[in-house]
Amino acid sequence: MSLITVGTMAFDAIETPFGKVDKIVGGSATYVAYAASNFVQPIQQISIIGNDFPKEELDALTSRGVKLEGVEMVPDKKSFFWSGKYHLDMNTRDTLVTDLNVLADFNPIVPDSYQGAEFLMLGNLMPKLQLSVINQLKTKPKLIVMDTMNFWMDVALDDLKEVLKRVDVLLVNDSEARQLSGEFSLVKAARNIMAMGPKFLIIKKGEHGALLFHENHVFVAPALPLEEVFDPTGAGDTFAGGFIGHLAKTKDISFENMKTAIIVGSALASFCVEKFGPERMKEITKADIDSRIAAFVQLVNFEIDLV
Amino acid sequence: MSLITVGTMAFDAIETPFGKVDKIVGGSATYVAYAASNFVQPIQQISIIGNDFPKEELDALTSRGVKLEGVEMVPDKKSFFWSGKYHLDMNTRDTLVTDLNVLADFNPIVPDSYQGAEFLMLGNLMPKLQLSVINQLKTKPKLIVMDTMNFWMDVALDDLKEVLKRVDVLLVNDSEARQLSGEFSLVKAARNIMAMGPKFLIIKKGEHGALLFHENHVFVAPALPLEEVFDPTGAGDTFAGGFIGHLAKTKDISFENMKTAIIVGSALASFCVEKFGPERMKEITKADIDSRIAAFVQLVNFEIDLV
Repeated sequence: MSLITVGTMAFDAIETPFGKVDKIVGGSATYVAYAASNFVQPIQQISIIGNDFPKEELDALTSRGVKLEGVEMVPDKKSFFWSGKYHLDMNTRDTLVTDLNVLADFNPIVPDSYQGAEFLMLGNLMPKLQLSVINQLKTKPKLIVMDTMNFWMDVALDDLKEVLKRVDVLLVNDSEARQLSGEFSLVKAARNIMAMGPKFLIIKKGEHGALLFHENHVFVAPALPLEEVFDPTGAGDTFAGGFIGHLAKTKDISFENMKTAIIVGSALASFCVEKFGPERMKEITKADIDSRIAAFVQLVNFEIDLV
Repeated sequence: MSLITVGTMAFDAIETPFGKVDKIVGGSATYVAYAASNFVQPIQQISIIGNDFPKEELDALTSRGVKLEGVEMVPDKKSFFWSGKYHLDMNTRDTLVTDLNVLADFNPIVPDSYQGAEFLMLGNLMPKLQLSVINQLKTKPKLIVMDTMNFWMDVALDDLKEVLKRVDVLLVNDSEARQLSGEFSLVKAARNIMAMGPKFLIIKKGEHGALLFHENHVFVAPALPLEEVFDPTGAGDTFAGGFIGHLAKTKDISFENMKTAIIVGSALASFCVEKFGPERMKEITKADIDSRIAAFVQLVNFEIDLV
């Protein structure tokens, strides 16, 4: 049940209608690790950080069973930094600053001790680097899940399409699915994208939930209606971490179990947005998660008696 | 299980990215009647038409058990006419023409034969007229369901709020819920709106499904992911008709049964959008409806085993 996670570890500055924070840890691999480590340990992390990444944050990850052998530490540079401001609807945001710093020269190396992993989570990152990790694995994992974003469709579409040929599950949001496929209908978009490689496609729709496509099957998962979304940063990565964490724990990669994994991912993401950055993810317990999952069951549960 | 339906019977001219039609029957009460008559008959219709409303359309309704005693026919005027053009996303549209015609002088009269009805569906109409119908009823119905739209919030908010005090269930879409409540969060909006009168609130989100709120409970219903939405006209009215039709058939107005009614309404609406106007609603059979409802069950069905 070993799980390799690849992505960024970073600092974020975030402004939402509810407040702002100048510097908080973030990055796709950070959120994935916090979410997935609730279900499976060790998490074999691959990322890169600068000399400014706090030891206590690394210790916090280590204490959750996150292995850092694959995390390169660059002594004379700073960590990746992203700054963004959310609009009132919380579904759209402006990127204010992107300082690549250490990320500019990132060349991920899979440590020998990570070889043989059964699950691979490719968090949002340059597609070339995602592909490099796949190519370094001596045994093909049981399941490769890939997250990406519109930015890579704009600047590295060919690379992205190469990765798509090699992954089992792709995660994108609805506008990204439309951009990647050129289709407005999400049903048509899904068919088109699955023809590019992934056997499973998850389309994330934020407050409107998520769709899972596989062959001719589709599953719709709700999002929990929340009083407030405090900070959506990392919600997609957290969803991904919960999704693959559940699959790695259960070692079951069937469509049926992926439905459950999506509910688990949605539950985790619903915590993530309650506080700035990964703060809430550091607090929650197994009991909190189980209770939130039970709320999801209530949310969609109905009886139909066809007479 | 008698059901009174109130609303417009009209002609529409519709343009979508898939085609256009210059004159097709429409109106909120038309769609409600087509949907609800699949579940309960008679439907006691209250509306107004001009001298141009085709006899064959009236006959088609009559043959489905729709009583027209409450439909006023004005010999020297034309029926209400609406013309609209949908944007590519099908969620937004521009109204091109609104010719009130007979609707300008509409003064709905509840026929004596309709008195004692257990269910009342107030389709989208001037709030004053919706209220007038409520006031004419000698016995309070078991359930009053009201549909409305942003237009009445703009031009007749005080009247609308008077009706809200008298109804059990309100149907609006997400932007209307936000407009009516002044709250962006739909959870807060729901609480605010239920304080205005309705014990139940349904927020329709089009392709993203629907939410049902009651006290502290919430239920999320999906929409069926469709290859194409050909023409969304009447989908909301059809949803309303399926919803109240199921409740009137089962005579059960519990929160649990309303969940089922929402799935039924969603299934009906998913047919409505497949062709222009109410055309598809005229074709479907009970077997079609049952099969579509079964698809909804598949769509959201998942197993959770908390271990």
